[in-house]
Amino acid sequence: MIAKTPRPPYYAVIFTSLRTDVEDSSYHETAERMLELAQEQQGFLGMESAREECVGITVSYWESLDAIKIWKGHAEHLVAQEKGKSVWYTAFKTRISRVERDYEF
Amino acid sequence: MIAKTPRPPYYAVIFTSLRTDVEDSSYHETAERMLELAQEQQGFLGMESAREECVGITVSYWESLDAIKIWKGHAEHLVAQEKGKSVWYTAFKTRISRVERDYEF
Repeated sequence: MIAKTPRPPYYAVIFTSLRTDVEDSSYHETAERMLELAQEQQGFLGMESAREECVGITVSYWESLDAIKIWKGHAEHLVAQEKGKSVWYTAFKTRISRVERDYEF
Repeated sequence: MIAKTPRPPYYAVIFTSLRTDVEDSSYHETAERMLELAQEQQGFLGMESAREECVGITVSYWESLDAIKIWKGHAEHLVAQEKGKSVWYTAFKTRISRVERDYEF
């Protein structure tokens, strides 16, 4: 549930979203499928996710900006992104960042 | 609920935590107080947070690494960090990253 990432540097995609009140089973199915698909991508390092009422934060970790770019353009992921905009989310923000340091307990 | 951050670059502190099952009101009080206190810090840009069962993700945004360092060492925050380790969290990971790009919907 806390991703086991390698020593920095690596990249984090921080995806913060606000859900609509559309409750269809396809949302959860698609979220699971996207995790499964992301795990198959070259350069994928891990993912963490939490949703509390309408606000959700998903952080995925990647080896490189190229890996992130390829994942963003993946055909099945593009379909999910479109459905996100048209059905599931009222708003979202995606931030692409380079992890410089980390520490844990 | 989605932080209104300026144009990149800026910094994100990604704090992922697993809660113990200790349910004391002081946890929520401290979380609220830390948000209030963070908002008063120089260089603070915003915060987003979600918890789902035991996994929580809080991302705070900052103008500089210096601002993050000063916040980490703030006396009242240090007390909260110690209580986090001894009472509230079974594990956590903190990642300090530089946001290079963002986009929104």
